[in-house]
Amino acid sequence: MHFSSDNWAGAHPRIAEALSRHASGFAAAYGLSELDRKVEEKFNDIFERKVAVYFVGTGTAANSLSMATFSRPGGVAFCHRESHLIEDEGGAPQFLGQGIRLEPVDGDLGKVRPGELDAAIRRFPAEFVHAGQPMAASISQSTEIGTVYETQEIDAVAEICRSHGLPLHMDGARFANAMAALGQSPAELTWRRGVDILSFGATKNGCWCAEALVVFDPEKSRELPFIRKRSAHLFSKSRFISAQFDAYFEDDLWIENAAHANAMANQLQSAIEASDGARLAWRSQANEVFAIMDRGRFNSLLERGAQFYEWKTPHFATGLVDGNEIITRLVTGFATTEGHIRDFAALLQSN
Amino acid sequence: MHFSSDNWAGAHPRIAEALSRHASGFAAAYGLSELDRKVEEKFNDIFERKVAVYFVGTGTAANSLSMATFSRPGGVAFCHRESHLIEDEGGAPQFLGQGIRLEPVDGDLGKVRPGELDAAIRRFPAEFVHAGQPMAASISQSTEIGTVYETQEIDAVAEICRSHGLPLHMDGARFANAMAALGQSPAELTWRRGVDILSFGATKNGCWCAEALVVFDPEKSRELPFIRKRSAHLFSKSRFISAQFDAYFEDDLWIENAAHANAMANQLQSAIEASDGARLAWRSQANEVFAIMDRGRFNSLLERGAQFYEWKTPHFATGLVDGNEIITRLVTGFATTEGHIRDFAALLQSN
Amino acid sequence: MHFSSDNWAGAHPRIAEALSRHASGFAAAYGLSELDRKVEEKFNDIFERKVAVYFVGTGTAANSLSMATFSRPGGVAFCHRESHLIEDEGGAPQFLGQGIRLEPVDGDLGKVRPGELDAAIRRFPAEFVHAGQPMAASISQSTEIGTVYETQEIDAVAEICRSHGLPLHMDGARFANAMAALGQSPAELTWRRGVDILSFGATKNGCWCAEALVVFDPEKSRELPFIRKRSAHLFSKSRFISAQFDAYFEDDLWIENAAHANAMANQLQSAIEASDGARLAWRSQANEVFAIMDRGRFNSLLERGAQFYEWKTPHFATGLVDGNEIITRLVTGFATTEGHIRDFAALLQSN
Amino acid sequence: MHFSSDNWAGAHPRIAEALSRHASGFAAAYGLSELDRKVEEKFNDIFERKVAVYFVGTGTAANSLSMATFSRPGGVAFCHRESHLIEDEGGAPQFLGQGIRLEPVDGDLGKVRPGELDAAIRRFPAEFVHAGQPMAASISQSTEIGTVYETQEIDAVAEICRSHGLPLHMDGARFANAMAALGQSPAELTWRRGVDILSFGATKNGCWCAEALVVFDPEKSRELPFIRKRSAHLFSKSRFISAQFDAYFEDDLWIENAAHANAMANQLQSAIEASDGARLAWRSQANEVFAIMDRGRFNSLLERGAQFYEWKTPHFATGLVDGNEIITRLVTGFATTEGHIRDFAALLQSN
Repeated sequence: MHFSSDNWAGAHPRIAEALSRHASGFAAAYGLSELDRKVEEKFNDIFERKVAVYFVGTGTAANSLSMATFSRPGGVAFCHRESHLIEDEGGAPQFLGQGIRLEPVDGDLGKVRPGELDAAIRRFPAEFVHAGQPMAASISQSTEIGTVYETQEIDAVAEICRSHGLPLHMDGARFANAMAALGQSPAELTWRRGVDILSFGATKNGCWCAEALVVFDPEKSRELPFIRKRSAHLFSKSRFISAQFDAYFEDDLWIENAAHANAMANQLQSAIEASDGARLAWRSQANEVFAIMDRGRFNSLLERGAQFYEWKTPHFATGLVDGNEIITRLVTGFATTEGHIRDFAALLQSN
Repeated sequence: MHFSSDNWAGAHPRIAEALSRHASGFAAAYGLSELDRKVEEKFNDIFERKVAVYFVGTGTAANSLSMATFSRPGGVAFCHRESHLIEDEGGAPQFLGQGIRLEPVDGDLGKVRPGELDAAIRRFPAEFVHAGQPMAASISQSTEIGTVYETQEIDAVAEICRSHGLPLHMDGARFANAMAALGQSPAELTWRRGVDILSFGATKNGCWCAEALVVFDPEKSRELPFIRKRSAHLFSKSRFISAQFDAYFEDDLWIENAAHANAMANQLQSAIEASDGARLAWRSQANEVFAIMDRGRFNSLLERGAQFYEWKTPHFATGLVDGNEIITRLVTGFATTEGHIRDFAALLQSN
Repeated sequence: MHFSSDNWAGAHPRIAEALSRHASGFAAAYGLSELDRKVEEKFNDIFERKVAVYFVGTGTAANSLSMATFSRPGGVAFCHRESHLIEDEGGAPQFLGQGIRLEPVDGDLGKVRPGELDAAIRRFPAEFVHAGQPMAASISQSTEIGTVYETQEIDAVAEICRSHGLPLHMDGARFANAMAALGQSPAELTWRRGVDILSFGATKNGCWCAEALVVFDPEKSRELPFIRKRSAHLFSKSRFISAQFDAYFEDDLWIENAAHANAMANQLQSAIEASDGARLAWRSQANEVFAIMDRGRFNSLLERGAQFYEWKTPHFATGLVDGNEIITRLVTGFATTEGHIRDFAALLQSN
Repeated sequence: MHFSSDNWAGAHPRIAEALSRHASGFAAAYGLSELDRKVEEKFNDIFERKVAVYFVGTGTAANSLSMATFSRPGGVAFCHRESHLIEDEGGAPQFLGQGIRLEPVDGDLGKVRPGELDAAIRRFPAEFVHAGQPMAASISQSTEIGTVYETQEIDAVAEICRSHGLPLHMDGARFANAMAALGQSPAELTWRRGVDILSFGATKNGCWCAEALVVFDPEKSRELPFIRKRSAHLFSKSRFISAQFDAYFEDDLWIENAAHANAMANQLQSAIEASDGARLAWRSQANEVFAIMDRGRFNSLLERGAQFYEWKTPHFATGLVDGNEIITRLVTGFATTEGHIRDFAALLQSN
C-alpha cells in the first residue's frame, strides 16, 4: 500500500523498454542527437506552437532555472505559501536564482488568490530599492495539495501578472494530472492563458528522471543554455532523457498514466469518505489525497503496512483539525492498482 | 567510427538490464531505498574504508559540488591549465562554488607540476585579503588528455597540498580507465595518497547517467546534503542511479569496460603510429588518443564518415604542431570494437 | 521640522572636526594605521573583552556580512517580521549571504517572541534537506519601531538560540539609543546575554559613515576579512572611519547623542499625547516615535513643512488603525532641538 | 617619505573643509538631496553628456558592480593580466558579478594588447555553452603600473569590443592622472572612444572616500540601483560623498591634484634615473613609479625611513630583472612634496 509519494515507483514498462532500446548504438551528446531533436519537435506538436525545450534532471532544477531565467537584482518572486518552491526546494530557487527571494501568497485550496497576489506585488513599489523588485509569479498546476486551477482561475492570476508586467511561471511537476482532470489541452492550460514558462514534469508520472523547462517565447530563453550549464544541469547523454520522453508521449501514455493515477485517487477519496476512520480534508482533482485522522490511527495504519506521510496543515486549513487530529497525504501514480486501494480501505475500516 | 566522445554511447547492456529490472515496484526516494544503501555499502568495500557517497547526475555537478564543499570566501582552487574544471564546465564550479576562482597550473602531459602548484599557491600569501585565499587543489585522473598520474606523481601533488593545508580533489570522470591502466586499487589511487574527495564518474564508462561524490572522511561532508539540494542536484528516484551503479560494480563490469576502452585506445594508437597520415601528439595510457594531422586530412576523414574532434593545443604542446597541422582527439569506450579501429586505420591509410 | 530619519543629519561637530584633523598626514591603509588600532582597542574597553572589529560603510553591509559569517548551504536565518533585514535591505542579506533565506518571526512591539522563534526553527527539522537548515537568529536593538528589548527579553531569545545551537546576531543600528534608554553597559546588552555578533551602528547617531561588525569570540571571525573584501566593503582609507569612531567614543559623545535623541523623542511623544490631532501607536523608549493620525492631517502637516513618513502597519498592530487613519514615523537625532519639537507640536495643535 | 600608496594620505584640505561645512543641517538621504543632484549635474557637464552616476565607497565596489551590470550566465570578462580586477579585489568582481570569470589578457606596459584581446574572446565561440560566454572587457586608465592608454590605443581596444558586441569598462581609479598626463577631456577619453561604463575614482586623488560608477548610456543602468542596494553599497548619508565630489570638482581641484601627483612622479623618475642605486623598470606617465633595485638596497632604504613596496614582476617584464634585483613601486599623490622627493633622492644616492 504505497502512497508515500509518486516518486516511489520506478518507471512505466514502456518507458523502461525505450531506455533499453536506446542503450545501444551511438548518438551525439549534449542535446544534439536526432532523438533529442525528434522529442523537441514533439513538444511543438503538443503545445501547438514552436517552443524552446530544455531537459533537466529534477523538478527543483526546472523550477530554479525558471527563476534564474527571470532573475533581477533584488528580485522577488511570488508563489503560494505552501508551494514546493518555498517549502521543499532547500533554497535552490534562491541560490540558483542568484539571491532572489520568494514571497508567499495566501489562497485557499493551494491556489494563489489573485487579490492577495496583487497586494503582495504592490508591497514592492517601483524603483523603491530598499525593498527589492518584483520579478515573476509562479503557480503550481496541479497544486501541491491535489487541486487544480480552472482555466478562469489561471486567467485571473495571469491578468494580475500582466498588469504588473511580470512573467508567469507554472510548476507542472504534476501537469499531466491537471490536464487529465480538466480535459483541456496543454496549450489551453499554459501559453493561451498567459503562462510564459512551464516546468514540465514527467518523473512523477512514469519516467525515471525526465523534466523539461518549456519556454513559450523562444526569444526569452536565449540565456537558458548558459544558465543550465553553469548550474551543472546539462546532461551529456541527454538522449537518456529524450528516450523517456519519446515513450512518454507515444500513444498518449502520459495522459493514460495521469488519468489512471487520478482515477485511483478518486477511488481512494471515496473509500475515505465511506470510512469511519478518516475524512477528507478537501476534495482533490489530481493524484494526491488528503485525509484527516487521529494521530493514533495514523500510527496504527503505518504499523500495519500502509505507507503515507503526515502533512503540515496549510495556512487556510488550520480550522479543519481538532485536538489529536492530523492531516495526512496519500499519493497515487501509474503503478497504483485498485487492489492497493481496496487493501487500504479495508485497513482503514478495520482499524 | 565513433570516436567523438565517450558520452556518445548509451549504456552497457548489463546496466540497461538492471535499470529495466528495477523499474517495477516501489522503493523510498531521495537516497533512502535499500538499493541505495546496498550500493553505498559497495563503495565502502571498493574503497576499503567507510566513505560518504552522494549521487549526482553530471560530472560537472560532482566537480562543482566538490568545490562548494571546500569553498571559502575569496577562495581560489588550483587545477591544471587544461582541466575540465577550467575549460568545460561553463562557470559551474565558480557559480555553484559561491564565487570562487580557479587558478590554472601548468604541467606537461596534462598533469599538474608540483613545483608550479606550490608557486601558484604561494602567490596568495596567508591573510592577504586583496588576493584571496587558497581553498583546494584538483587533479584529474585520468587527465583530460588521456594520460594518468603514477602513484608517486599523486604523492608529490598531495605533499604540496598537505604542506599548505589544502584539501585535494580528484576529478575521476575517467577514474576506472586510470585504474585499469595502472593496475592499482581504488584506495591506492585516492585516499591512501592523500586525496580528500573524488568525483567518481561512471557515465563515460557504461552508465546512462551515474556520478558520485566520494568523501573519504565522512566528517567533512556534513554540509554536502544541503549543498547538493540547494543546487537542485538531489534526484527523487535516486535508485535509478544506484541501479546503474549496482550493475556497474557487479562482477567488476566497470574494470572490464575500462580495460576494454583502454585496449581499444592502444590499438588505435598503434594504428596511428603505423600510418603515414597522422602521428601521435603524445602517448596516452587511458581511453583518449591524440593524433596530429593536416587540417585537410582531418576534414577529409570527417567527410568519409569518421567522427572525432579537433582539440585545442595544450600550453605545453605548442611546439608539436607545424603550419597546417592540428591536434585531434579520438575517444574509445565500452562500445568501441576492433572493427571500428580497423575501419579507421584503413581510412587513415587510404586518405 | 526634520523627522524623516536619523540619516538626514550630517555629522556631529566633534566628529566633523576629528575628520578634519585627521585629513592631513599619512597613515597605513586597509585598517593597519595606528588610529585604526587605537580604535579597535577602544572597542575592547567598551565591551569589556577582547573583540574582533570590522569597519564597513553601511548598516546593511554590517547585517549582511554578519549573515555571510554564519551562512550555511540551504541556510535560514530568523528575524522579526518587520526587521530591517527583511524589509529594507533590498535582498543584500540573501545575496551577500550566498543564497540564504530570512524567515519572519512574529512578535508584538517589534520584538521577536521567543515561542514563535522556537516554533519557526522547529519547522526546519535537522537533516531534512528539502526545507533547508537553520543558521542564525537576529534581533534589532533598538527595534525598528523604537522599542527596546529588556535584558530578560534578550535572555529569552538567547536561550532559544542556545537550545538549537544557533548563533545570535544583534542589529545595533540604533544600539546607543537602547543603551541610553536602558542604562545598561554594552557588555550587559550583548555578549553577556548570549549575543555572538553585533552590527554596531554609529551613522545614525552622529557619524557620516561609520559602522562596525563586532564579533565577541574572535575565533569565529577568521573568515570575515575575506568575506568583507569579496563583497567590496574594505575601505582603503579606513582611518576616515576610525577617526569618526575615535571622536564618537571620546568623552562618551555617543551616549550623549543617543540620550539627547531619546529625550527629544520623549518630548515628542508627550506632545503627541497631549494633542488632539494624533495619538501614539505605541510607546517607544528609543529615538523613533510612531503616531496615528488621519491621512488628511498627515498630508496637511507635510504641506506645512513637517517632514516625516507614513509607516507600514506592523502585523501586530492592524487593530490599531481605523478607516482613514495611518501610522506615521518621526525620528529624532543628535541634531534635533527642543525648538523642532515645539514647532511640530504647534503645527499639530493648529491643524 | 611616503610612497607606499596614494591611499595613505587623508583628504585634501578643501575637501576636508567641504565635509565640515556640510556636516550641519539636514538633507534627504539615499542620493535624494540637493547636493547629490547638483553633483550629478556636474558629472553631466564634465562628461559633456547626460550620464547616470552611482556613488559607492570603494573602487573595488565600482569595478565589481560594473561587472554585475554586464553579468551574463557563464559570463567571462577580459582584462589585463595584472589588472586590479584580477589581482587585488579578493574575488569581489566574481562574487558580486554572480559567478563570472575574469580572463587575463597579455600586453606590454600594463596595457591590453588588442590582438590578444581578440584572440582571448575568440576562445569562447558563440553558443558553445561548455566554455561560457564573453560579457565585457575592461581596461585601466591609468594602468596599475603608471602608464596611460593613448587615445588611439583606447580606440583599438574599443574596436575589438565593438566587433564582438561586448561592452567596455574602464577602471578609472586613477583617471584624473591619465587626464592630466594626456591633456584630454573626460569625454575624449571615455564615451567618445567607445567606453560604456567608467569606475570614476576620487579617493586616491584627494578624497576620503568617493567613487562613482558613470554609465554613459543611462538606459543601460536601469538595474544599477538594485545591483548597488543588494550588494549593500548604497550609503544613507550619501551627501558625504557628494560633498567631497563637490569640492573635488570646484575650480578643477581634481585636475590640479592629479597634475601635481604626476609632476612629483616625474621628479621622482628623474631622481631615480640620475641615481646609481636604482633604475626605472619602465617610464610612467601617471603617478606611480617603478624602480628596479637590489633587494638589499630596498631593505636598507626601508630601514632608513623610506616607505614603498616591492612589486610583483609583470608578465611582460620578466627579462628586466637579474639575480637579486626586484621591482619596487613608489606612488605620489596630492600630498607629496618636492621635499619628499629630494629626501628620497638623497637616501637613494647615499645608500
